Amino acid sequence: MTTKEIPYKIYLEENEMPQAWYNLRADMINKPAPLIHPGTHQPMTLEDLAPVFCEELCKQELNNEDPFIEIPQEIRDFYKMYRPSPLVRAYCLEEKLGTPAKIYYKFEGNNTSGSHKLNSAIAQAYYAKQQGLKGVTTETGAGQWGTALSMACSYFDLDCKVFMVKVSYEQKPFRREVMRTYGADVTPSPSTTTEIGKKILADHPGTTGSLGCAISEAVEVATSTPGYRYVLGSVLNQVLLHQSIIGLETKAALDKYGIVPDMIIGCAGGGSNLGGLIAPFMGEKIKGNADYRIVAVEPQSCPSFTRGKYAYDFCDTGMVCPLAKMYTLGSGFIPAANHAGGLRYHGMSPVLSQLYDDGLMEAISVPQTEVFAAAEEFARVEGILPAPESSHAIKVALDEAKKCIETGEEKTIVFGLTGTGYFDMVAYEKFHDGVMDDYIPTDEELQKYFETLPKID
Amino acid sequence: MTTKEIPYKIYLEENEMPQAWYNLRADMINKPAPLIHPGTHQPMTLEDLAPVFCEELCKQELNNEDPFIEIPQEIRDFYKMYRPSPLVRAYCLEEKLGTPAKIYYKFEGNNTSGSHKLNSAIAQAYYAKQQGLKGVTTETGAGQWGTALSMACSYFDLDCKVFMVKVSYEQKPFRREVMRTYGADVTPSPSTTTEIGKKILADHPGTTGSLGCAISEAVEVATSTPGYRYVLGSVLNQVLLHQSIIGLETKAALDKYGIVPDMIIGCAGGGSNLGGLIAPFMGEKIKGNADYRIVAVEPQSCPSFTRGKYAYDFCDTGMVCPLAKMYTLGSGFIPAANHAGGLRYHGMSPVLSQLYDDGLMEAISVPQTEVFAAAEEFARVEGILPAPESSHAIKVALDEAKKCIETGEEKTIVFGLTGTGYFDMVAYEKFHDGVMDDYIPTDEELQKYFETLPKID
Repeated sequence: MTTKEIPYKIYLEENEMPQAWYNLRADMINKPAPLIHPGTHQPMTLEDLAPVFCEELCKQELNNEDPFIEIPQEIRDFYKMYRPSPLVRAYCLEEKLGTPAKIYYKFEGNNTSGSHKLNSAIAQAYYAKQQGLKGVTTETGAGQWGTALSMACSYFDLDCKVFMVKVSYEQKPFRREVMRTYGADVTPSPSTTTEIGKKILADHPGTTGSLGCAISEAVEVATSTPGYRYVLGSVLNQVLLHQSIIGLETKAALDKYGIVPDMIIGCAGGGSNLGGLIAPFMGEKIKGNADYRIVAVEPQSCPSFTRGKYAYDFCDTGMVCPLAKMYTLGSGFIPAANHAGGLRYHGMSPVLSQLYDDGLMEAISVPQTEVFAAAEEFARVEGILPAPESSHAIKVALDEAKKCIETGEEKTIVFGLTGTGYFDMVAYEKFHDGVMDDYIPTDEELQKYFETLPKID
Repeated sequence: MTTKEIPYKIYLEENEMPQAWYNLRADMINKPAPLIHPGTHQPMTLEDLAPVFCEELCKQELNNEDPFIEIPQEIRDFYKMYRPSPLVRAYCLEEKLGTPAKIYYKFEGNNTSGSHKLNSAIAQAYYAKQQGLKGVTTETGAGQWGTALSMACSYFDLDCKVFMVKVSYEQKPFRREVMRTYGADVTPSPSTTTEIGKKILADHPGTTGSLGCAISEAVEVATSTPGYRYVLGSVLNQVLLHQSIIGLETKAALDKYGIVPDMIIGCAGGGSNLGGLIAPFMGEKIKGNADYRIVAVEPQSCPSFTRGKYAYDFCDTGMVCPLAKMYTLGSGFIPAANHAGGLRYHGMSPVLSQLYDDGLMEAISVPQTEVFAAAEEFARVEGILPAPESSHAIKVALDEAKKCIETGEEKTIVFGLTGTGYFDMVAYEKFHDGVMDDYIPTDEELQKYFETLPKID
């Protein structure tokens, strides 16, 4: 496609790095539906959001106008510690497969938090620091977000209070220790440190917790402690904005070598990685400057895009947060316990939901054992141990590359490799031992949760 | 020191990458003492070594003449997957410390095996493949070497049989699963699959194993199974040769910006990382072209350089391998169980031993809790979770940088950051919980093992 020889890893020079995040919403013809107040059902205003989130982040959340928002110098300095992330040409994988396809992946796992979550964590910590706050609170399930936020807060000398779903706190002590290494205060949720935690423990003695409960505890502490705000690692518009750094770097690296992708593939849980990866490509597509197949990959056990409803729903199971219009399985939906890793969120970013509804992107759901088989196939030739989340994208990229063997097409496939699987070896072990299974929720099960969706026009 | 602005991470371009390993022995005035046969005490010949190691590797082991040995193209292709590793200017750390020192570290943890071990693993696997072998055997303790070798063997479609010290096999199931992900056959040692294993189990029922026992099992399988050879991840001359890629890249990156280090610091267990990092610098020092302080850092609990004897000793506790002249604590010495991570080897690379004996380098031993404190200090500002082994070098680099605050000296400090600590969180947890202690062997204890040294002139 180009006469320049393409290296194994394309790195941008420091002077080629993006200076601003790209706010895709500014170029969207149909804007994402606004967050609405859980009580009044009116669009959330800056004043509504300010007690919960940092002020600058509230502005970013509501900003559907400015296509570019400058990345503050302090954040760009931090990005230099681990960015640019490499865009890797998967020569080894192509050769092993014998495919004429050209495969590239943007690898976000080359930082200690092990995932792309750090891109937004550092931005949110920065704005908290700028506002003169003392600290932030958040929840974490598997622990990637909590780890990233702990690193970011440590960098800016902010307190970081993480409510970690109790079952993860106990079963994933290593993630917890990484957070402690970065100075975070990690509390198993539900806890006796909050009113909502005490209530839940009284109502459900012995509960092992849920993400919804941890969110409620984190929000309670943020809104009741002077100098604290709550931060979130996915779903929100502001998070997708920060994550646009992934897509901007990817596009700059491809442009440098004159490469035009045919397909862009990313895994989708709440949408933070996918939304960031595709942002500048989707912008070009909306403007009619280019055409790309853009594919979201989700687990069959938590199929918000492929089997969910596009409707207003609660963002948390505790129903204390604003409502978002999104593809959702219902805020009470919890994926089967056998599902490994992340991508367990019941809803999907409102931005991505609108794009999907507009037919600008596709979605595919894949079974868990095939995801792990793809992960292993990838690991053995590309030298990276992928996170289960990321491996959803690998699975579809491999399928597409294998199709090219049949058709002879030299398709250019780009996918997002969001992180590493060092803390997911229990799941790999189950896969190796042949005791991992695939769970697909029945229509009846899904219907049960759809009936809990709030009735909003 | 230079007018060019120095980036956070110095990466070499593909055309700047080393094409040959540097064989420091060729430039050493006093050559390292040869390995000798455990029975005859005569220097080991190619014929003696060939039943155990791959032929090409035997030649490299004995080659004290050629200063450069070409890196085969296939290995250079594999290196492209994760090399060049970044040479990082620790701007964040310098600022946090408020030191006028300029700190650089060569980070070898940016590959799935998580350490520099992959540099030699891929070379050894390549030569095994070239020789038409079916597979290789090895031992692993903490698991870094076994992981690296599993990745390398998977790349070349070689069988990989790893004997993993039983206590690690049981306590570090995640490392084991990474090896299985790469298709390795991992056996807890001692096992009933070998004669020596059965004998040990009969003599010591319930033993949790040792590295020495695992070596014996691996060597037995390699020498008794057609098409197999044994490979080792440290100590040997060939391993230091392969690891010279670390130092060559470091020197090329520094030269590119006209940076001349004052000090080069590395952790030392068997010496594979340190020997590789310092090789080209030591070469210049020997030739009188430059002067550098070169510092080996070892744990106080396993102080081979600082408190060991320079003598011929067995490389393994089973006493089946050749003897090497090295700084040693005696082949029966096992560091206290409370010592976390690697650097537990009783001896030291013969090359480094000779250089140390010649006064060309220094050695410092440091207590474990101070190492973890330095690791945490580093992690919080540099965004990398360091392995305990690597953190020995961090400890001394921090100490030196802090001295510069007092003296005002703008010293340029380079250290090797060999890997990541993702699988060492149990040790970090002990440190956080304040239950980690420092063990220093008494003179009497050391004396006991010195008395077991073989009597050889």
